[in-house]
Amino acid sequence: MDTPEQIDFYFDFISPYGYLASLRIDQLAARHALPVVWHPVLLGVTVMKVMGLKPLMETPLKKDYIPREIARYARLHGVEIGRDLAKVPMNPLPVARVFSWLKVHGSEHAKGFASAALAAYWRDDRDLSQPAEVLAAGSRAGVPESLMSRALEADAASSLLREEVDRAIQRGVFGSPFFLVGDEPFFGVDKLELIDLWLARRGW
Amino acid sequence: MDTPEQIDFYFDFISPYGYLASLRIDQLAARHALPVVWHPVLLGVTVMKVMGLKPLMETPLKKDYIPREIARYARLHGVEIGRDLAKVPMNPLPVARVFSWLKVHGSEHAKGFASAALAAYWRDDRDLSQPAEVLAAGSRAGVPESLMSRALEADAASSLLREEVDRAIQRGVFGSPFFLVGDEPFFGVDKLELIDLWLARRGW
Repeated sequence: MDTPEQIDFYFDFISPYGYLASLRIDQLAARHALPVVWHPVLLGVTVMKVMGLKPLMETPLKKDYIPREIARYARLHGVEIGRDLAKVPMNPLPVARVFSWLKVHGSEHAKGFASAALAAYWRDDRDLSQPAEVLAAGSRAGVPESLMSRALEADAASSLLREEVDRAIQRGVFGSPFFLVGDEPFFGVDKLELIDLWLARRGW
Repeated sequence: MDTPEQIDFYFDFISPYGYLASLRIDQLAARHALPVVWHPVLLGVTVMKVMGLKPLMETPLKKDYIPREIARYARLHGVEIGRDLAKVPMNPLPVARVFSWLKVHGSEHAKGFASAALAAYWRDDRDLSQPAEVLAAGSRAGVPESLMSRALEADAASSLLREEVDRAIQRGVFGSPFFLVGDEPFFGVDKLELIDLWLARRGW
């Protein structure tokens, strides 16, 4: 393969697998001296509208398996999941919009914000569809409140998010987590070990 | 965990991931001194009717990714895939019926038959919806032709397959490959390394 310049990491804030991947991808990439660019996606657009599928937790049989798989993974990797997967997901738009806006207007805070938001939702079971909760989560990561307030009010945040989602679809991204290592696509948190091998061997 | 007595391995003959898993599961289980019982499933029943999903290769975005992932896996593990994934799948019923019947009436030949049928379809691109091809594939694995002919004509083969598929659904099996290690469910060929770890650690 051509040596990749970066790893693109795609996730939806309401995806538990995206959260699990977010806890490991930067450390993995650092072993190969690669930067990771985080991107928001919206499964409600990609999976439901473009692909015509149902959410995992509304899919017969799979909905019984997923919580068990997540709990098993969490025990293995020492991750705390405080949110019941059977609960209706929050609206991910406010937090995904703020993240998209920060990537452009406060990029040094973007990844810290996303990490804090994911932890607030998945570990602490906070409802980030509420602006106050978005501010609280970001503040714990040291993101200036004034910056987040501007993001929450910015009209441009919506279109920045839409551009991210459209660009991801154009690149073939269809799930969370999804990784592009250079141009090589990998779907699912189960692929982290394979990505590590791919980078160590420079592809095959 | 309670020490499992066996691994149940579920696959559809038309599933490329099922084929890939079939090439490794017995060797993996042997390292832990466990037998593997192979079971036919029908994605046309489980995934399409029960779960209400589309076949992978008819799902936008995913259908572009799957062939690339399969080819990458095949290169890594030295597997030859002679069949174009974009082709319409064969009707899996004849071969799945014969397999189900052999499990009851010629059990020492069942796994060899299934392996040979999977290789004929995925490596050699043979159309096993044709009885002559079923016989040819099984013969190469040393399955007596008279036994396969009886299986192809047996009315009971249909109901034996239906019972297998129903029982799999009752146990929560929803894809190919799917594994039950004792009662612990694992979905996907990406889980083989995890199953190995699960058995080595006796669960967690």
